[in-house]
Amino acid sequence: MLIVTLDGSSKRPLYEQIYEHIKSEIKAGRLSIHQKLPSTRSLSNHLAVSRSTVDLAYNQLLSEGYIESVPKSGYYVAGTLTLLDLKEKKSIPREDKSEQNGDVRYDFSPFTVDISSFPFSTWRKLSSQCMNDMNQGLFLLGENQGDYILREAICNYLHDSRGVNCDPEQIVVGAGADYLLQLLSQLLDKKQKIAIENPTYMRAYHILHGMGFDISPIEMEKDGISLDGLLKSEADVVYVTPSHQYPLGIVMPIKKRLKLLEWAAKKENRYIIEDDHDSEFRYIGKPIPCLQGIDANDRVIYMGTFSRAIAPAIRVGYMVLPETLLKRYQQEFFYYASTVSRIDQSIICKFIEGGYFERHLNKMRTRYKAKHDAMIKALKVFDGKIRISGENAGLHLVVEFLEEKSEEMLIKKAEEIGIRLYGLTPHYIGKTHFTHPVILLGYSNMSEEEITTGIRELYEILYKNYNSLL
Amino acid sequence: MLIVTLDGSSKRPLYEQIYEHIKSEIKAGRLSIHQKLPSTRSLSNHLAVSRSTVDLAYNQLLSEGYIESVPKSGYYVAGTLTLLDLKEKKSIPREDKSEQNGDVRYDFSPFTVDISSFPFSTWRKLSSQCMNDMNQGLFLLGENQGDYILREAICNYLHDSRGVNCDPEQIVVGAGADYLLQLLSQLLDKKQKIAIENPTYMRAYHILHGMGFDISPIEMEKDGISLDGLLKSEADVVYVTPSHQYPLGIVMPIKKRLKLLEWAAKKENRYIIEDDHDSEFRYIGKPIPCLQGIDANDRVIYMGTFSRAIAPAIRVGYMVLPETLLKRYQQEFFYYASTVSRIDQSIICKFIEGGYFERHLNKMRTRYKAKHDAMIKALKVFDGKIRISGENAGLHLVVEFLEEKSEEMLIKKAEEIGIRLYGLTPHYIGKTHFTHPVILLGYSNMSEEEITTGIRELYEILYKNYNSLL
Repeated sequence: MLIVTLDGSSKRPLYEQIYEHIKSEIKAGRLSIHQKLPSTRSLSNHLAVSRSTVDLAYNQLLSEGYIESVPKSGYYVAGTLTLLDLKEKKSIPREDKSEQNGDVRYDFSPFTVDISSFPFSTWRKLSSQCMNDMNQGLFLLGENQGDYILREAICNYLHDSRGVNCDPEQIVVGAGADYLLQLLSQLLDKKQKIAIENPTYMRAYHILHGMGFDISPIEMEKDGISLDGLLKSEADVVYVTPSHQYPLGIVMPIKKRLKLLEWAAKKENRYIIEDDHDSEFRYIGKPIPCLQGIDANDRVIYMGTFSRAIAPAIRVGYMVLPETLLKRYQQEFFYYASTVSRIDQSIICKFIEGGYFERHLNKMRTRYKAKHDAMIKALKVFDGKIRISGENAGLHLVVEFLEEKSEEMLIKKAEEIGIRLYGLTPHYIGKTHFTHPVILLGYSNMSEEEITTGIRELYEILYKNYNSLL
Repeated sequence: MLIVTLDGSSKRPLYEQIYEHIKSEIKAGRLSIHQKLPSTRSLSNHLAVSRSTVDLAYNQLLSEGYIESVPKSGYYVAGTLTLLDLKEKKSIPREDKSEQNGDVRYDFSPFTVDISSFPFSTWRKLSSQCMNDMNQGLFLLGENQGDYILREAICNYLHDSRGVNCDPEQIVVGAGADYLLQLLSQLLDKKQKIAIENPTYMRAYHILHGMGFDISPIEMEKDGISLDGLLKSEADVVYVTPSHQYPLGIVMPIKKRLKLLEWAAKKENRYIIEDDHDSEFRYIGKPIPCLQGIDANDRVIYMGTFSRAIAPAIRVGYMVLPETLLKRYQQEFFYYASTVSRIDQSIICKFIEGGYFERHLNKMRTRYKAKHDAMIKALKVFDGKIRISGENAGLHLVVEFLEEKSEEMLIKKAEEIGIRLYGLTPHYIGKTHFTHPVILLGYSNMSEEEITTGIRELYEILYKNYNSLL
């Protein structure tokens, strides 16, 4: 018979003491494999505890596999226990993801934003407001497409600032543009070929490709995507960035927009994915209405995000579905819970509704315009040596270096003196070759002074004679 | 010549005044289609403004399509303008999503949590701490798999409480379990068949099915998924909920766990998706180590979420990838940005690291156990009329009503007196038939008193003679 020393004054329940004792006896080999255990009745008598206490202990041992129950016979020590002792935690050496940023003094990244302008105190204020007037319901799951009041706020903003013509019901709020593109992929027919501007936002390409679509890269013309190329590709869905082509910065003129809409209207199930990336930042002239707003045939899927306009870490984007796809979404994809926390939804809603978003955008437009102008001015020294394009919008310029031969060499030369440049080549699907290197010069997260001196140093390292020009 | 009245004292820039004037002239028909406009030189002379001001105005008109430029000739009013006037905002009647909750007095939902126990003041405190000590970097994009310190915190928590054996590098943090399942779907081979416990968490079924997988529902045995059924299905991936089968509440014993792991190890590319749903809430005995922790062959994808343990609106889940899939993820899916805002990541990290999470779980376990016990006690009156199962864990009981015939009728009868019940049937893939209705009795968001009176009223409406039993 088992000798278990029970401690009635212990915090541990009696059943657990019995369980622990038997377990350690088995592990130590003092109870051997297939050895019979006392019946629950006899053990409970022996230990002077209730039978249900022993039952509990045996059940735990059973469910953990230490003992087995043989019907009409009793309990036995089990056979296979070797795997049960938990292994040590694994350790995988972490990839070194730091990019040795130590020596970079000027980073002309086109991928970042001016984070020092984040509306910090407003965000903090709204956040604590949400926490304070919040009812507990905010911690329950909200609507799958996003809370209706947020969708209303986005709907009004998009109508007034971008000419988007939709109902809040058509809006799906999600955790960033990438997520929404994955979701959209599930609404489209996988057999449809998707045409993509080339060069493009490569993340979109990777996602659509990764979701199993056949992708046709389409060459760019001076006024945007080649419509001939689109026709020839036989794709029925096209991904475009008309307000500010990424990365070339082309603003698609209205004429081409109308032709693109005409193309979409010609066949059933044709769709245009309009990524209205960066549309908030246009420095010359007023923004052109988006494709969605002038589409009469329900063919445009409009996508946008707060990542560029507010901050990258705010993982909130939105898409406006045409009614056909909306129906499909609501019928077949009803089960996808929203991916944005309701507190975040509520903060953003207050940010838009309270007029903070508009003020923030106005402030940023002015800031970015000043940086943009500083960049243009600083580049004047390169007169004749570069060709600038894409300068009307967005957060970078596209600069072709007419006297250089290799993008790689140019970037390397700059890197040597602490200037980080970003080439155009990685934005192409497939191979490409330029006679002269083309660089995307981002200015969003640099001060005007940094821009000015950074560009001057770049000139100096390339042509050595900057000072002689002054 | 155009007569434009310019207002030099207006806030609107001169170019915009010119642009607006010409646009309204065109829209009103006072400038007709194909009519030639004055050259920029002559208009600037005429209006006594700089030529670049007129250039800007014309460029805006050009880009919006109101005018066209004919090389070597000049500017003309354009031909196609009909589509350009933005339509009114659409209005789609909103589906009525309220479930007429007015008359429901007792809602035995198995899908909710005890929201009144949300650690409200802690959350608020941590949130404003994050806002205060936060550097602005928190608004830049973090690591794609989630911030490393959060992954470390999750890794330690999973090791200590669930026996998960992993490195933070294997963890992917994402916006909820649904999102992570979509992401995982992209890592698996689409040609692989996926076996799913039947009944199951239908959302997982819908997502995997929607992502294009061939799904084999596998029947359940008393100790969990049928291994024979799994073998026969020829599936190479299986989705299981071993710690607390959803919805049946079965805890898979260690023996079956080992057999399942053996099955997975037998063939390359076999994987077990272990959804450790609800594992935090186990009332009898200690938790059994998860499959991942006893797997020696790198075959288990472990998934969990904070939705049940903290609150549904906290859209944060995690998965632990085996090394093979991790490699694939890092090589091929590097482009997916994290879907969780960094502020939320930082709050949860503090919540775990500060010991709040453990205290919260202990509190909830006690609360849920009291509710669970109240439910078991209240159900005693049904003696012989019901069969209870799944009572060791989770937030609901599985109750078979032995004297009833139809789930639908039972639910309807209860609904009439304001009691909402949830049947088992909707959790089955494909059709199913029970001799007696089976109800999932959730208790998480009801008080003990509500549970007691709710169950009593249910008894009364079914058997009319509750009082005579007292």
